[in-house]
Amino acid sequence: MRSSILSVPVQRFGRAPDSSPQDLLAVEEPLQIRIGDRDISITMRTPGNDAELAAGFLFTEGIIHGASELAAIDCYDNQAVVTLAPGVELEEERLRRNFYMTSSCGVCGKASIESLEAAGCATLAPGPAVPESVIRALPGKLRQAQQVFEHTGGLHAAGLFSPSADLIALREDVGRHNAVDKLVGAFLAQTPLQDRILMVSGRTSFELVQKAVMAGTPILAAVGAPSSLAVKTALRFGMTLIGFLRDDRFNVYSGASRIC
Amino acid sequence: MRSSILSVPVQRFGRAPDSSPQDLLAVEEPLQIRIGDRDISITMRTPGNDAELAAGFLFTEGIIHGASELAAIDCYDNQAVVTLAPGVELEEERLRRNFYMTSSCGVCGKASIESLEAAGCATLAPGPAVPESVIRALPGKLRQAQQVFEHTGGLHAAGLFSPSADLIALREDVGRHNAVDKLVGAFLAQTPLQDRILMVSGRTSFELVQKAVMAGTPILAAVGAPSSLAVKTALRFGMTLIGFLRDDRFNVYSGASRIC
Repeated sequence: MRSSILSVPVQRFGRAPDSSPQDLLAVEEPLQIRIGDRDISITMRTPGNDAELAAGFLFTEGIIHGASELAAIDCYDNQAVVTLAPGVELEEERLRRNFYMTSSCGVCGKASIESLEAAGCATLAPGPAVPESVIRALPGKLRQAQQVFEHTGGLHAAGLFSPSADLIALREDVGRHNAVDKLVGAFLAQTPLQDRILMVSGRTSFELVQKAVMAGTPILAAVGAPSSLAVKTALRFGMTLIGFLRDDRFNVYSGASRIC
Repeated sequence: MRSSILSVPVQRFGRAPDSSPQDLLAVEEPLQIRIGDRDISITMRTPGNDAELAAGFLFTEGIIHGASELAAIDCYDNQAVVTLAPGVELEEERLRRNFYMTSSCGVCGKASIESLEAAGCATLAPGPAVPESVIRALPGKLRQAQQVFEHTGGLHAAGLFSPSADLIALREDVGRHNAVDKLVGAFLAQTPLQDRILMVSGRTSFELVQKAVMAGTPILAAVGAPSSLAVKTALRFGMTLIGFLRDDRFNVYSGASRIC
């Protein structure tokens, strides 16, 4: 079974200097689900139990109707190839509704990163160098500005900050990718946002790093943990990726040279 | 501007009896993004800043390349219709990679629920009645069983429990929908899982309730908040939906009769 954890180098700020120089991240990689030679879906997932994931996905999305419709599921790396039981036909209508493709199209993290290169993304501009104190100030300011979260506990926030920690704008949404899209959409005329810091309230997945790369934001900070592919992508494009930014501490997984 | 918060009735367990009988939820509804008469994407989002969301989505997914390619974005209810600037052509390849459709296909929450009805879902079986103490026991057992979260802080968990709070299986993933799909896939031969409780470590969106309805699980409990559409869907299918299950307290948004 493939590992669901990856150990990566990290620089820790605001902790005892003898803290481990490595951090453990959840692995995120795309799984391509196929029925025979037909692509059904690509989903970003943590490797492990891939056959279960394929079976459960096909069932909960209404593409198959029970275990008896499955003959076999063969998993190779980041592919799960499903063979249906003899006589089982796919409903075209159902399939059309369920055909997921995302910009993270590809069957390994490398392909996901390459799809960003194909979209014209190159290494991010050097952008601002910001003091540690600016980074520490971000979560308090984000939280203070959140209108809805205090009431519902149900919304993700994304904030756009200046290099001196002034909040320029905040957007909220049930989906964290939507909160980032709203923010980027609001400042589209100013892209690339190379003099800006983006902060999100949750965890950092590939999708969020991808959106920050597209927007040209050189610094992405998050309250939660990054995934393995978020870190790999940040390294590739020279982004400063900050995680676990809370309680006056944070970890830097990529691009620490922008923190002065 | 449409509200991003909805007030719903709630039954609170483990709190002072004078707590408010209403709770505030983040609104979740689908937004259909179109370019002219072409469907590009449907995303579950919190209403508000829809034009920004459409612009940001098209840009961060590489479908448009800057604000100058946009002529107008008209928003009606749950649709954002984008008009491109004269002479701007869509790249077919890019569009194909970005055409999202999910099972929550539809332009309002009602259509999302109807798509579940169309998939053959009916009101869930009565299933077990469980004492309050069983519900309170779930988060501790889920947390105890989590292998990876303790290390990385980056994984969502989904646990399948018996009506007496025995953990039957646990799955983890960077995506909470994947953790649920892995669990359902593992027990596919036993569906409908009408004698089971499903517990998830995060928040509850429409997508998770949908997957639990498809699996036939009558009780869904979450550490975090539900969205508005999660509650509406649970009410429609007679599911017991529990949120904020932590610190020995929880809220019931639907189907409280199963708690005895």
